[in-house]
Amino acid sequence: MLTLDFHPTGRHFLQIPGPSPVPDRILRAMSLPTIDHRGPEFGALGLKVLAGIQQIFQTKHPVMIYPASGTGAWEAALANTMSPGDRVLMFETGHFATLWQKMAVRLGLQPEFLAYRGSDDVLPDAAGWRHGVQADLIEERLRADTAHQIRAVCVVHNETSTGVTSDIPAVRRAIDAARHPALLMVDTISGLACTDYRHDEWGVDVTVSGSQKGLMLPPGISFNALSPKALAASKAAKLPRSFWAWDEIVETNKTGYWPYTPNTNLLYGLAEACDMLLDAATGGLPGVFARHRRWGEAVRTAVRTWGLSIQCADPAVYSPVLTGVVMPKGVDADAVRRLIYERFDLSLGTGLGKVKGKMFRIGHLGDCNDLTLMATLAGCEMGLKLAGVQLAGSGVQAAMDHFSANKPSGPLRAA
Amino acid sequence: MLTLDFHPTGRHFLQIPGPSPVPDRILRAMSLPTIDHRGPEFGALGLKVLAGIQQIFQTKHPVMIYPASGTGAWEAALANTMSPGDRVLMFETGHFATLWQKMAVRLGLQPEFLAYRGSDDVLPDAAGWRHGVQADLIEERLRADTAHQIRAVCVVHNETSTGVTSDIPAVRRAIDAARHPALLMVDTISGLACTDYRHDEWGVDVTVSGSQKGLMLPPGISFNALSPKALAASKAAKLPRSFWAWDEIVETNKTGYWPYTPNTNLLYGLAEACDMLLDAATGGLPGVFARHRRWGEAVRTAVRTWGLSIQCADPAVYSPVLTGVVMPKGVDADAVRRLIYERFDLSLGTGLGKVKGKMFRIGHLGDCNDLTLMATLAGCEMGLKLAGVQLAGSGVQAAMDHFSANKPSGPLRAA
Amino acid sequence: MLTLDFHPTGRHFLQIPGPSPVPDRILRAMSLPTIDHRGPEFGALGLKVLAGIQQIFQTKHPVMIYPASGTGAWEAALANTMSPGDRVLMFETGHFATLWQKMAVRLGLQPEFLAYRGSDDVLPDAAGWRHGVQADLIEERLRADTAHQIRAVCVVHNETSTGVTSDIPAVRRAIDAARHPALLMVDTISGLACTDYRHDEWGVDVTVSGSQKGLMLPPGISFNALSPKALAASKAAKLPRSFWAWDEIVETNKTGYWPYTPNTNLLYGLAEACDMLLDAATGGLPGVFARHRRWGEAVRTAVRTWGLSIQCADPAVYSPVLTGVVMPKGVDADAVRRLIYERFDLSLGTGLGKVKGKMFRIGHLGDCNDLTLMATLAGCEMGLKLAGVQLAGSGVQAAMDHFSANKPSGPLRAA
Amino acid sequence: MLTLDFHPTGRHFLQIPGPSPVPDRILRAMSLPTIDHRGPEFGALGLKVLAGIQQIFQTKHPVMIYPASGTGAWEAALANTMSPGDRVLMFETGHFATLWQKMAVRLGLQPEFLAYRGSDDVLPDAAGWRHGVQADLIEERLRADTAHQIRAVCVVHNETSTGVTSDIPAVRRAIDAARHPALLMVDTISGLACTDYRHDEWGVDVTVSGSQKGLMLPPGISFNALSPKALAASKAAKLPRSFWAWDEIVETNKTGYWPYTPNTNLLYGLAEACDMLLDAATGGLPGVFARHRRWGEAVRTAVRTWGLSIQCADPAVYSPVLTGVVMPKGVDADAVRRLIYERFDLSLGTGLGKVKGKMFRIGHLGDCNDLTLMATLAGCEMGLKLAGVQLAGSGVQAAMDHFSANKPSGPLRAA
Repeated sequence: MLTLDFHPTGRHFLQIPGPSPVPDRILRAMSLPTIDHRGPEFGALGLKVLAGIQQIFQTKHPVMIYPASGTGAWEAALANTMSPGDRVLMFETGHFATLWQKMAVRLGLQPEFLAYRGSDDVLPDAAGWRHGVQADLIEERLRADTAHQIRAVCVVHNETSTGVTSDIPAVRRAIDAARHPALLMVDTISGLACTDYRHDEWGVDVTVSGSQKGLMLPPGISFNALSPKALAASKAAKLPRSFWAWDEIVETNKTGYWPYTPNTNLLYGLAEACDMLLDAATGGLPGVFARHRRWGEAVRTAVRTWGLSIQCADPAVYSPVLTGVVMPKGVDADAVRRLIYERFDLSLGTGLGKVKGKMFRIGHLGDCNDLTLMATLAGCEMGLKLAGVQLAGSGVQAAMDHFSANKPSGPLRAA
Repeated sequence: MLTLDFHPTGRHFLQIPGPSPVPDRILRAMSLPTIDHRGPEFGALGLKVLAGIQQIFQTKHPVMIYPASGTGAWEAALANTMSPGDRVLMFETGHFATLWQKMAVRLGLQPEFLAYRGSDDVLPDAAGWRHGVQADLIEERLRADTAHQIRAVCVVHNETSTGVTSDIPAVRRAIDAARHPALLMVDTISGLACTDYRHDEWGVDVTVSGSQKGLMLPPGISFNALSPKALAASKAAKLPRSFWAWDEIVETNKTGYWPYTPNTNLLYGLAEACDMLLDAATGGLPGVFARHRRWGEAVRTAVRTWGLSIQCADPAVYSPVLTGVVMPKGVDADAVRRLIYERFDLSLGTGLGKVKGKMFRIGHLGDCNDLTLMATLAGCEMGLKLAGVQLAGSGVQAAMDHFSANKPSGPLRAA
Repeated sequence: MLTLDFHPTGRHFLQIPGPSPVPDRILRAMSLPTIDHRGPEFGALGLKVLAGIQQIFQTKHPVMIYPASGTGAWEAALANTMSPGDRVLMFETGHFATLWQKMAVRLGLQPEFLAYRGSDDVLPDAAGWRHGVQADLIEERLRADTAHQIRAVCVVHNETSTGVTSDIPAVRRAIDAARHPALLMVDTISGLACTDYRHDEWGVDVTVSGSQKGLMLPPGISFNALSPKALAASKAAKLPRSFWAWDEIVETNKTGYWPYTPNTNLLYGLAEACDMLLDAATGGLPGVFARHRRWGEAVRTAVRTWGLSIQCADPAVYSPVLTGVVMPKGVDADAVRRLIYERFDLSLGTGLGKVKGKMFRIGHLGDCNDLTLMATLAGCEMGLKLAGVQLAGSGVQAAMDHFSANKPSGPLRAA
Repeated sequence: MLTLDFHPTGRHFLQIPGPSPVPDRILRAMSLPTIDHRGPEFGALGLKVLAGIQQIFQTKHPVMIYPASGTGAWEAALANTMSPGDRVLMFETGHFATLWQKMAVRLGLQPEFLAYRGSDDVLPDAAGWRHGVQADLIEERLRADTAHQIRAVCVVHNETSTGVTSDIPAVRRAIDAARHPALLMVDTISGLACTDYRHDEWGVDVTVSGSQKGLMLPPGISFNALSPKALAASKAAKLPRSFWAWDEIVETNKTGYWPYTPNTNLLYGLAEACDMLLDAATGGLPGVFARHRRWGEAVRTAVRTWGLSIQCADPAVYSPVLTGVVMPKGVDADAVRRLIYERFDLSLGTGLGKVKGKMFRIGHLGDCNDLTLMATLAGCEMGLKLAGVQLAGSGVQAAMDHFSANKPSGPLRAA
């Protein structure tokens, strides 16, 4: 038998920014027997999850559900729309934007990587990892591309490595202002079903997402939400693709099936997740978003009270999904994380890439409640002190005050 | 489908003093398919759980496992050893001692109910519910019973209604000092597998326990641990009994079976619980006891810092399983509990019987860890304040200081 | 980890007459987290299962749900209604009727045990175990009891040890014809939710049942369905009782709670079982009964084709729940069973009491379908032959013909 | 809640050739909480499954575990080793060989598709779908390729669409005999862990497999087993790839991690599957292979007795995993399948591609036992007759005779 928790008792607190804590209800759904993926029950399941995921993306257009984890959906977005050597404009918001850019290179594209222009005292080597996408830089670059060589603008909505949620409508407006035909492709792997995301209204052409964040599923399925323009672009795109190809999936999805074997048991989980997230009795998607907003505010209040820097430097783009906590100079963030993990049975997110060792990340997403976060903040506060970090005040106290003063707005489930 | 949590998200914090939070590992074990209770696999299971439960009771004598909840095991203890009209000496330590006494009356016995002699400012109507069994009173009464009419002394080890853990060896010494032949019967429904309990060494004749506390199982099975003297007494006892009768169970248990259909799936859970509790990698029973002690200390530190009264007035008998928190005069403890439940998704134990509305109980048993208790204390602290209770200080802060200053002694599970 | 199947692969075929195969859906429901048995969610659960179980007993009167296995419910029926020394009239239909009679003796009652008058070639030592209750003998005996000393008539509806389903309305008519005031108490532990049972319409005073048969739950909860006359009788009854006492349960059940800790997770299973059994889309209770009838017919067709004796000698009282298969003289039924178990991963019921070694029992109840029974019959047929039993023909072939010729009447679940 | 079985009671018989019936033990393992894929427990899990899967592929070289279903692993094999326009030699053994060939075209390769040379009375339009790979044709073609333009030979080991298991060592010998440097790439998606497969000993360069067949997992993870030669080829290969790229996976796997988020909960299932398949107590892999062989023999015996054609025309390459059953002319195989599904709660595999409507497939793999297959054959026999197909004899009877006459060779699990 597997030992999945090296601690002697109690339930592990998984407060990394994804995989998020999976509700028992979803794990239970996933344990239903695997069925024939060509049988009548499967068709009913397929139609249900396809309709549900469209509601969550707020789109009326097709959503591809891949039996693959999120990185695959990045590749799918590029492989279906681009041809070898195509130029794409990307923006360095953090580690995941950087990984997507590297993938574009590997796939034979020519990404141009815009970045924040400015310096930063707190994270001098990663100044841009404290801000969101700057739409004005994108507009400026697109206006300069009079030959329309840039085929797509690719940005990350919620940067899981930094805790910054960029303004996607502003990017859309920038493209439109530049009268540029580039596709808009957005990664909201960690934003979907945590914070408002409107694929159609915001004019996104391809939205990439995954299962293991706001959808509260284990990793293993991922998504491309499409626009008619993206579908049209895919007809001409020349990158080789088969597994990721949209055309056959769109066709077979019409009756609730897939062209090849889908990830059946994770689809059971997705069906359950849709039921939970769209449940009117708990406020539906607006309720989901309000809860994440509330949690994020409490965590940031705690970080401020500790006297530590929130990684996101711009309050307008604070992420409701996770908060990056920057350590004082000289403190090894990973040593703090390890102490907290070993002593308090709590997993926090590590600093990635340019900020490795300099910060850690607190996830406040998925299947949580106020007390889960109080436990998390208590674990952080005790661990920081035990690690010798000087704190200005009790973030735990501040978070309790915040939660007490702010009643949840959403309806509770009816008794 | 059942809705078992009226809150919109997250895992409910069940911090009542039992049923305790059941580890997922045990719930999963209980979901194994039901098997033939007369087949070979069942015999192997039966022998395993019978051996395991003996280790937990620290006895070499037979332990009855009833397919019935704990109240049934009280009845079994009396029905197997007593005859109609027999006198038994009981001690009013709280609500559960009182219920056992009422049961004795219903079964046609003549219980004598000793109680604390003294007054109390904090709980004037329930002075005795702040103390443990007073062995000297028992000795005094037994000495007076020169005709040896009293057939049994029945006491509660860990009073789930008050948070007091009585000194059982002292009761044994009292009986011996009085040279009285009465049986010693002890209810440790909520003490077993939380705090040290030694059936053989302490000279107990019948120990009563249940599944839903330290064993971390759902309710539904219960226990009588026997002594040779108790078995002998059962031969002469005349109360009618059949379902509870020890004789046939002792006989059929020899090969791992029961005389009638056992509670198969809860036995799966019991097998898993024994594996967990007796696991040397997590410290075995001494590790279990150390963890509960540590948790109890942290919770009492918090209560003291709030400036509230711990129900147990005698530090020598503080329970490591639960803590009774007495409300200031004029505060309705149940209204506080309800606010905490509704707002913070946390269940606390209600005041029972004589102390209804005057106190609530915090369970710190079973599948917990430091952060579970920090969440619990944060929920209490926020709720108390929202209910208008004046607190002297932050119990949450005090508990964090306590946990930080006191490293867990037990080994962690090896990686 | 427990090893609950000593075979290398595949799912065990549990075709004993209970515990019946538990649907995964119910096992999954039982794995939900244990909740506070005094909290609001529990009250809602309690009211739901109490309403559901009334529908299944076809009664408007209270149904006690005990956190104890079925044998306990036998004791509850007697302990609540009888006084020491009371006379009860019982009927030897088989092993379980005999056990209930022995229990009556242990409880200090004076049971009179009627039996079939007649001889039998097939089972000369257990002639009566091939027939149902003979209502005329009961009527005769009651007419003779002019002093009305007999306080109750206790019969088994579906004898799990023989495969005979007695005619309960006929017993009611016998009592009425004798103008006798005795209570009518019926054990339908294995009949309920397999075959029609009408507590109110049939004028039963106490019906005893359990969880692990037609309700498709693991063992661990059991039932007493009451009549107003039974409730009235309990006021005067003098047998000591506390755990089993109806009065407090009836009172606390009004709001969905119990006077002591209930068997929470089995109640989750019961809620799910009620949903399944009462589901109109699968035909509700009439659909349940029709399916069991159909299965019983197929199994008996097979036994006849093998040229073996069906234990039940009277086609009018064939059980739709199980079939007793009598071995030819000289064949050790338990050796056959063991061979089938070891070689074909199939559990059959052993011969009990007077028929030990002479027969085995095929359960056809609970979560089955046509192919489950075809597998079962194939296992029996292969095993019988391997054991050297001469068969007249292929029961498997006959059962296939039967199933093919008889379309299930009930509706399937809508797609 | 999802309705995954449109039948009123009982467990569905899933006897398609994959997804195979998933053991409850694996479903239970998959329901463990998702953990941090960068934490210490995950590293331990990763090393465990990587070691286990190597044993199952019988290789000492790296095995890639993709968080993607099997079709993805086809793409991975080609994308890592080929450059645009490369020639590959494939062999039309059935539907899946054809799909792989189509994928090669989509990816910009130039596949050459060899096929059986000969005619067939039973399936005139799909003569080649009754035979295995003809190694002599491959040798002949490779000898002709003196310029060594062919970069790879790609064959399917166990054709899931036909029930033919090709001789892979013979293909290796053919390549060697031709002294040709082409890579040997083999799809054993449905063969692995059902029938002997030796990646290293047979000299395979890339083996493709998936989770939902012999590994008894739900779909969602898939594999590439590599050879040093394949790894070397990947350095020079020019097809764009990122998600599928071997290099980073090989590197990060060294410590038990993956370069991007893996399919955590399916890896739990894989760990459990490895424990089951490699368990010495049940015979290890040789035991697994012997069981499938035994099941295949019984099913073919039944098909022959019915007087129907086994799709595989060459007994030397009968698949132990599934059996294709060809319908008499004029019978719509899918109508038969539908009748069996609706009436008997049994799923069979549909005819794919060229044989659609002409045959159905019986899966005999994964978590089965003798009685599961007896149920399956009974469902087929009843359904065929109800559909009006004339049968020569009772396949069910023949299979019973076969199972009875042939004791399983492997050891049973020790008690």
